[in-house]
Amino acid sequence: MSTTPNISNFALGQWQPHEGEGIAQYNAVTGQLISTVGSQGLDYAAMAQYAREVGNRNLRKMTFHQRGRMLKKLALHLYGMRKKYYPLSYQTGATKVDSWIDIDGGIGTLFAYASLRKKFQDQPYFVDGETAPLSKEGTFVGQHIMVPRRGVAIHINAFNFPIWGMLEKLAVNLLAGMPAIVKPAEQTSYLTQAMVQDIVASGILPEGALQLVCGSGVGILDSVTSQDVVTFTGSASTGRMLKSLPQIVEQAVPFNMEADSLNCSVLGLNALPGTPEFDLFIKEVRKEMTVKAGQKCTAIRRILVPRQQMDAVQEALSQQLAKTVVGDPQLEGVRMGALASKEQVAEVRKQVGLLAEENELVFGQMTDFEVMGASAETGAFLAPMLMRSADGFKASRVHELEAFGPASTLIPYDNTEEAAALARMGKGSLVASIVTADDQEAREFVMEAASHHGRILILNRDSAKESTGHGSPMPLLSHGGPGRAGGGEEMGGMRGVKHYLQRTALQGSPTTLSNVTQTYQYGGRYIEDQVHPFRKHFEELQVGETWITHKHTVSETDITNFANVSGDNFYAHMDATSLEGTIFEQRVAHGYFVLAKAAGLFVEPRKGPVLLNYGLEECRFVKPVYPGMTIGVRLTVKEKVAQEKREPEDIAKGIVKFLVDVYDETGESVAIATILTMVKMLDQNGID
Amino acid sequence: MSTTPNISNFALGQWQPHEGEGIAQYNAVTGQLISTVGSQGLDYAAMAQYAREVGNRNLRKMTFHQRGRMLKKLALHLYGMRKKYYPLSYQTGATKVDSWIDIDGGIGTLFAYASLRKKFQDQPYFVDGETAPLSKEGTFVGQHIMVPRRGVAIHINAFNFPIWGMLEKLAVNLLAGMPAIVKPAEQTSYLTQAMVQDIVASGILPEGALQLVCGSGVGILDSVTSQDVVTFTGSASTGRMLKSLPQIVEQAVPFNMEADSLNCSVLGLNALPGTPEFDLFIKEVRKEMTVKAGQKCTAIRRILVPRQQMDAVQEALSQQLAKTVVGDPQLEGVRMGALASKEQVAEVRKQVGLLAEENELVFGQMTDFEVMGASAETGAFLAPMLMRSADGFKASRVHELEAFGPASTLIPYDNTEEAAALARMGKGSLVASIVTADDQEAREFVMEAASHHGRILILNRDSAKESTGHGSPMPLLSHGGPGRAGGGEEMGGMRGVKHYLQRTALQGSPTTLSNVTQTYQYGGRYIEDQVHPFRKHFEELQVGETWITHKHTVSETDITNFANVSGDNFYAHMDATSLEGTIFEQRVAHGYFVLAKAAGLFVEPRKGPVLLNYGLEECRFVKPVYPGMTIGVRLTVKEKVAQEKREPEDIAKGIVKFLVDVYDETGESVAIATILTMVKMLDQNGID
Repeated sequence: MSTTPNISNFALGQWQPHEGEGIAQYNAVTGQLISTVGSQGLDYAAMAQYAREVGNRNLRKMTFHQRGRMLKKLALHLYGMRKKYYPLSYQTGATKVDSWIDIDGGIGTLFAYASLRKKFQDQPYFVDGETAPLSKEGTFVGQHIMVPRRGVAIHINAFNFPIWGMLEKLAVNLLAGMPAIVKPAEQTSYLTQAMVQDIVASGILPEGALQLVCGSGVGILDSVTSQDVVTFTGSASTGRMLKSLPQIVEQAVPFNMEADSLNCSVLGLNALPGTPEFDLFIKEVRKEMTVKAGQKCTAIRRILVPRQQMDAVQEALSQQLAKTVVGDPQLEGVRMGALASKEQVAEVRKQVGLLAEENELVFGQMTDFEVMGASAETGAFLAPMLMRSADGFKASRVHELEAFGPASTLIPYDNTEEAAALARMGKGSLVASIVTADDQEAREFVMEAASHHGRILILNRDSAKESTGHGSPMPLLSHGGPGRAGGGEEMGGMRGVKHYLQRTALQGSPTTLSNVTQTYQYGGRYIEDQVHPFRKHFEELQVGETWITHKHTVSETDITNFANVSGDNFYAHMDATSLEGTIFEQRVAHGYFVLAKAAGLFVEPRKGPVLLNYGLEECRFVKPVYPGMTIGVRLTVKEKVAQEKREPEDIAKGIVKFLVDVYDETGESVAIATILTMVKMLDQNGID
Repeated sequence: MSTTPNISNFALGQWQPHEGEGIAQYNAVTGQLISTVGSQGLDYAAMAQYAREVGNRNLRKMTFHQRGRMLKKLALHLYGMRKKYYPLSYQTGATKVDSWIDIDGGIGTLFAYASLRKKFQDQPYFVDGETAPLSKEGTFVGQHIMVPRRGVAIHINAFNFPIWGMLEKLAVNLLAGMPAIVKPAEQTSYLTQAMVQDIVASGILPEGALQLVCGSGVGILDSVTSQDVVTFTGSASTGRMLKSLPQIVEQAVPFNMEADSLNCSVLGLNALPGTPEFDLFIKEVRKEMTVKAGQKCTAIRRILVPRQQMDAVQEALSQQLAKTVVGDPQLEGVRMGALASKEQVAEVRKQVGLLAEENELVFGQMTDFEVMGASAETGAFLAPMLMRSADGFKASRVHELEAFGPASTLIPYDNTEEAAALARMGKGSLVASIVTADDQEAREFVMEAASHHGRILILNRDSAKESTGHGSPMPLLSHGGPGRAGGGEEMGGMRGVKHYLQRTALQGSPTTLSNVTQTYQYGGRYIEDQVHPFRKHFEELQVGETWITHKHTVSETDITNFANVSGDNFYAHMDATSLEGTIFEQRVAHGYFVLAKAAGLFVEPRKGPVLLNYGLEECRFVKPVYPGMTIGVRLTVKEKVAQEKREPEDIAKGIVKFLVDVYDETGESVAIATILTMVKMLDQNGID
């Protein structure tokens, strides 16, 4: 044993080989010993405290944009060296395609979350949602902010995706400003560890941001606090055990669980043999049964088929499955590799055995199948197996037992209501799919099944070419499901980030909340200056800074001229005889005239730091503007977001959002909008 | 006992008196027996199943707008009869002010949630967030929807707010489309029951939407499923016990907990005696100590004071507290009523006794105080008590023990960092407040304390007049806090509603997702018609319906004319010599010209069903428009929301959101926006 590599843990900023003998890690294809892992010698309480004190402090002070740029740098770094992880991945039994999902898919999630920074303010906290009016006069308002929790994220991951499983969580907690302790499953943690070595060596993450436990995690949650976040991916039974640990319950520790579920795929009622949808369905089911040798928490376990098509589907699917060459994933022609371990093979056989007591095994067998370039004796191989249920409403095991391998069951249904009811019998799943060209059928299924699913894929000939498939969680979409699937939510774009933040409702005067949040709140005090804001560079503008423009008395000539230049001759503007029964008392100025004239009032025409106005948000015309009324504008800096340069020769600039408040001679607002501008920086070196 | 009223439960659509002896409910002021409550004879599993099968089905099919209008009707109904609840409220020990918070505050929450319907689509489900791009060609996209869970909300409430405690939760689950079983605390459930009788009698809620358990709730959670939602308000220990029940953990049942916490209020460093902020602080602390006799989960338990001001605050606060007349809440002049029960009095005495071992009792006493118009022997009275800690960092009990009555402790601090650290020592609170005129100090405190608080009030002379106070949760703001406060979130406007919804990520072609969600997705198939959409009434328009306009070749004359009418002479439009170093190749048309000309192209000028354009959202100028380019518009119905009439004589109408896609001669978009219009209905009876 002395020559077997000892897979080190990364704790307290140091690589630490495990003490004691450790657990053996085997090559899933050859059965050979690879290395040993263990956690003996680790002080989990000290690791968590180090993460909170060092890692959290370092990350918490960074802005979302700084954290996002850090993720981008990390993603680029890992993308450059991604090829080195493939040989290790093959040892887990994964094929090249399987490994691509894990490795490139994981790095892709880093890129996606790096880009998401643009949805957040350039602050350490997130200003969440609209201002809440809390008073008549507007001197007291509310605004939510979300700040990073002052703890550590502890990720307990599954064996099937050693890389993606880490990165899909790490990307999110790092963008949120929290450090992590990652605990991959022991069977395949050598692959996770290889990437963590590169992450640590890169020096891109600040100290304390990441620690790694490669061995068993017993006791890792004993010292968690309410400021920490625990995530768990794996079997429902282990997840429930951890979730009810006294420390988790007593401290009200957020616990996000994602458990394997009995996902289904539905063939539409009119997707008859010969239609593109029938073929798409067969292809999708076959793929989900065999990718990662069926070891995916999103794999299709229940195949819902219109009763009349049961034979046709069984036949077509069996034909396809028969083409699945099982064997050494490195060999040309092999389409399905090994399971993660011999223990997994035994477990799947046991579950299929139980399922087969209730359902007929109509394709494949437990033993005696061909393995190309390897041996079923020494490697962790299984061949695809298809079962068939006579009646899904009477059967119970098919909605309860999961064979976490290349096995699935055909179940008949008679109408869409039944299909949805069968889908719901899984008691909560990560994903369902329906393959149909009939959008009305899809709508009906979605309305009845959505309550029990975290994701529903609707596949047809229009979307098939670019579909990412039933089994793939996407960074911008929520991943998780209710009930059996654990009741958690991961990723989902900004949504996932919020799991690592504490939401706090702030209350105070608009001026105070503008100063506290650094986002101007309507009604906040103006900061006036002699210099027009369009003459100032990004750095020189401050939130709350306001330009009060000259004024303009609106005339009928304005309305006519605007109608002429725009071609908008809507009756309320142009036809003085038409106003009976409308809310208008006389010919009303075009809303777009009010906006255009506001720009005419607030724009400083000379060339200066303001580069362009690229958009407009939340514009409301709140009071009709009639000829004879006089309008002016209060232009206020609402929010600033520094932008990094794409290329070194680019102009260094930032986004400035201005609140445009157009008011009339009584002081009342007639139109309110937020305009988006790009403003040059004074320091042309730009930001890091 | 036979003449004592038996408070009935409302189960399975029937009023059911409890079986057996039940628990006695006493008048908190006089100590007299009022009635008995009990739960014997109730079948909780049957009640939950009835709610799921009848109540859930009835509510789930309604749209958010229908549910909101139902809430409005209910709020108006209860508002009309609110006075009848006050006499019952006085029996709980509440004063008139306390009762107003409970009764009018509760009905106000109903009104607030009724209005919130406008933030949701007019559909049974909510279309959540932006479309997620998932493919290069745009044939495969993602969109989240949120549907009502197919279960029942079980609310386990505290004794202190028998009305508000029910309505602040019920308003939210009903808007979401879920039924509820309400279990108020036994001590005061007679008041809750009185209102539920009126709700049931009104017939405003559909069958199965509401059931009531007035007695003990032992066993009420034994049959919950993952589609249900459990909320708990009360002591942290009971909450933890319930949250770790096997059924809750095994089924991954969402559990929202709101527990009493050790909330603090901070006097700012510069809020010296004589400043308005000093006086505001004294007033706020005094109010929070005495309102509801200190029986509020948001009450101030820790008073953080700059060390130099400790004596001044102690003196000023003691003077104010001395004016607090304790007694029968119905008497003129009484400012603080009774606690809920003699048991509560004993419990508070016990906690204050423990706190007083560590801190000095500097004002008030446990016994021997005056009670106006009632007796401390028979009624559940206590007088205000103020303690003082020498060192909050050394003291532990003040951050751990809660006396749920009119008691609080002064704690010194030296700088803002220390104040925030002390605040965090409560290990998670519902609310903190800071009274300061210095926004920078407020920002510093917020940044360091927000992680441990669900709400932070910043009070100063500007906001004081309209402030709703430290202790009041507001419907539009989140109510809850991390750690000790339970880790939950209630209300918060739309946020609270989402707790009762399941989020599902839908994936498919834009056309499919448009049809499934009834919200047009960019890239979805156009439905073309010979009739211009401005000639159609609300009911005649369908999502996806598109008008392809005629076109317009932009000229320099357009730019000049637009500059003349708007007065916007920005150099990029008007100065052909200035473009070096900009992104523009030649003089560019104004963004607002493109918008205005788009309107000129898509507007049908004749008087018709379209009443007005009241706003604009998500407008982006995505490509510069130069003279010589030719633009056209695709105007597509994106979403429809029916509006109810305010007055019977109003025009019946609805909101129609149109996607405006302005494109050039290459087919590429140059500007995209969503415009908001009001469109007349064909059926002038309008909607219910």
